[in-house]
Amino acid sequence: MSNAPEFGKIVVFGVGLIGGSFALGLKAAEQVEEVVGFGRSLATLTQALDLGIIDRAGANAGQEVADADLVLIATPVGQMPEIMARIAPYLGPDTVVTDGGSTKTDVVAAAREHFGDKLGQFVPAHPIAGAENSGAAAARADLYREKKVVLTPLPENSVLNLARVRSAWEWCGAQVHQLLPSEHDRVFAAVSHLPHLLSFALVHDLAVRENSELYFSFAASGFRDFTRIAASHPEMWRDICLANHVALLEELDRYRAQLDELHDALRRGDGAALEKTFDIARSARRTWAEGKAR
Amino acid sequence: MSNAPEFGKIVVFGVGLIGGSFALGLKAAEQVEEVVGFGRSLATLTQALDLGIIDRAGANAGQEVADADLVLIATPVGQMPEIMARIAPYLGPDTVVTDGGSTKTDVVAAAREHFGDKLGQFVPAHPIAGAENSGAAAARADLYREKKVVLTPLPENSVLNLARVRSAWEWCGAQVHQLLPSEHDRVFAAVSHLPHLLSFALVHDLAVRENSELYFSFAASGFRDFTRIAASHPEMWRDICLANHVALLEELDRYRAQLDELHDALRRGDGAALEKTFDIARSARRTWAEGKAR
Repeated sequence: MSNAPEFGKIVVFGVGLIGGSFALGLKAAEQVEEVVGFGRSLATLTQALDLGIIDRAGANAGQEVADADLVLIATPVGQMPEIMARIAPYLGPDTVVTDGGSTKTDVVAAAREHFGDKLGQFVPAHPIAGAENSGAAAARADLYREKKVVLTPLPENSVLNLARVRSAWEWCGAQVHQLLPSEHDRVFAAVSHLPHLLSFALVHDLAVRENSELYFSFAASGFRDFTRIAASHPEMWRDICLANHVALLEELDRYRAQLDELHDALRRGDGAALEKTFDIARSARRTWAEGKAR
Repeated sequence: MSNAPEFGKIVVFGVGLIGGSFALGLKAAEQVEEVVGFGRSLATLTQALDLGIIDRAGANAGQEVADADLVLIATPVGQMPEIMARIAPYLGPDTVVTDGGSTKTDVVAAAREHFGDKLGQFVPAHPIAGAENSGAAAARADLYREKKVVLTPLPENSVLNLARVRSAWEWCGAQVHQLLPSEHDRVFAAVSHLPHLLSFALVHDLAVRENSELYFSFAASGFRDFTRIAASHPEMWRDICLANHVALLEELDRYRAQLDELHDALRRGDGAALEKTFDIARSARRTWAEGKAR
């Protein structure tokens, strides 16, 4: 039958925003027969059941992955190695595994350690669909629609396994891109991890002052935008920073050198240097925003 | 008559977003009889006339301010000294002057230099109503509604002159606050000028890379928010940075020290230190946002 779902059974570890939206997306596309969920708490699993995200809660991970078509590991990155270790021995030969982690070098290293000769069945992924909310209640079928998902395929992946994982994300509506894991981590250190660090740093710097209330009371819309990401989850961002510390330190060094230059320009009153920097930034920001709007 | 306008004639130098909205706000409140505008170009003045922002374009600044009740200098800060010098000799004894500059120490210094024994007639102001758009076409009567306006009164100001300037901003719907000029500049260096500098720096740092397109192509919503202010006007921000360089350098030094600490925490893998910083920032950001929402 031409309209049969592409996937029979999928198993999702972590039924929050990322995992839940993946399941809902495949269900909305009618491309999955059964979704089995694992989670840290019974409450989350019950909620995911009630919301129709999963069809049942799994009890035995090894048993569930043995005959699954697709496994998504959508827990915080710190918990992935343990899940990989738990499922690796039982993975069926035709089961593909993907993940939803924001960093890739560390996830790939864990996969190399735990999947052994089944490494080719794991196709790492990073869905770029950050949201201020998290948890199963925030999951929605269209979270990935027209959002980017970056796959960082491994040399061990077969064309078929790569195609199956790509297909799953595409059924969720995502635009799938490919980068090397190291390339992924450099790019996201620059455009995501560093801005988070900088935003957290600014708010922290104000918050620890004795007269912080005076400062906050005059903060306006520019501050609001600049610091929106400083309301992000501390534990999650701690893990991302630690996992990607090599690339992030490189970016931070570059950025500090840039601030040193601006500091010097300010100190010597070099308006031309300041204006040139601001002008290049504004042009690039506008070009980027216009590209996004297209 | 109890409903007579509080101000007869006002003169506005710079009929863009700030000056135009001030005029429209007073007109909407029916608190002004006549608005006379000065601008850098005939085109702007014609537009301001067409939009009903001003009633006529002024020809002779000295003559116009002589019998004005209120003068607003709403040009870029760099042009204010020249305007002050031009109008000072002609200011009527009952004319009060205010401004719309984003920095105050430098504006006060210029006022001290140019207004001489009429300094008491000048009450410096900074309306906190940044907008991405500028120009007369962006002006609107409600721009200042429920926005903060910071007055930085001078020891030379009489209670009466302070009250008249305060009243004008209040008729525009603003919440008027008072700070010392130096205090104003320290606060805004921290909550506005530094974030702009940091945002410009991040985008510039990406824009000058050979493979900048790769980076920008994966930038998402966090980047969008963090860098929105990097689309601000380069010339205006050059002037603000130069005008407030003392306070801004102090803030930049503090911030660089903060980044050094985060750099060290990252290098030694100190997750607890990172999480503590992020957590303090998130709490403060949330408290601030909740306060704003009230």
